[in-house]
Amino acid sequence: MQQVKVERLLVNYKTLEKFKRFKEYGNQELSMLEDLESNIIENDSESPFFGIYYGNALVARMSLYRVDAKYDQYFTPPQDYLELWKLEVLPDYQGRGYGSRLVEFAKEYNLPIKTNPRINSHGFWEKMGFKKAKYNMERDLGENPLIWTPEGVAEQSVS
Amino acid sequence: MQQVKVERLLVNYKTLEKFKRFKEYGNQELSMLEDLESNIIENDSESPFFGIYYGNALVARMSLYRVDAKYDQYFTPPQDYLELWKLEVLPDYQGRGYGSRLVEFAKEYNLPIKTNPRINSHGFWEKMGFKKAKYNMERDLGENPLIWTPEGVAEQSVS
Repeated sequence: MQQVKVERLLVNYKTLEKFKRFKEYGNQELSMLEDLESNIIENDSESPFFGIYYGNALVARMSLYRVDAKYDQYFTPPQDYLELWKLEVLPDYQGRGYGSRLVEFAKEYNLPIKTNPRINSHGFWEKMGFKKAKYNMERDLGENPLIWTPEGVAEQSVS
Repeated sequence: MQQVKVERLLVNYKTLEKFKRFKEYGNQELSMLEDLESNIIENDSESPFFGIYYGNALVARMSLYRVDAKYDQYFTPPQDYLELWKLEVLPDYQGRGYGSRLVEFAKEYNLPIKTNPRINSHGFWEKMGFKKAKYNMERDLGENPLIWTPEGVAEQSVS
């Protein structure tokens, strides 16, 4: 397979238009649209979105956010970690390794990763080396968190 | 429509068996199963699950958890609120008002409510008086939070 390039996506009208093809278009995108309309942001280099282009088409994307160690309830020792969400590959482009490529990109930061996957995607995440965090109701509520840890990092034990 | 009774569900093997018919069976239920197997809990009266029975069949359920005011990032003044998740009605029993009945039950606590609904359920939540919280990435990450407020309670403004 040819090397696939992961790019940080600039937040602008063009990108938001491309986001409309993804199923998980929601409050986050609408909020970005409002910020563009009120000139708060444009081409923000701190966008949480990363994606893969096939020609001019954005065919896969994810969001990544670095959570500060002081909010870490998942790993030990408590440390900065990445929250990963909205990992999605457009239907016509699935099965080509784009989803895996995005997750590998996230792992290259060498920080622990936490995600709350959609129902029925557990096979994929397991293949990527993620495992279920021990469920803790006060922390997790409606989530089914999965975590990945680089070497030397362990899961927090929950009471 | 006849009055439909909402009951707090006791956590035991029988209840967990009934939960298997729901799509959103996940880490939470598996964790409860482990707790039962190690005799940590049984018939816990503090179960977060509420449901509606039709005869002997559990046909609708939700989880409710009271979040302490000190963690409130949604409402002003900051206060205890309810997190609602896993609202689900079995397919054969949809369209009878069971979902609405569960939400009305939650509202009877007269506390603000926050939920992170599934994609494509916004029409239902709007009908129930919920509105989108203003998206705040550091707080919401992959969520699309919806909130409902009793009289006298407002949404926190986000920076």
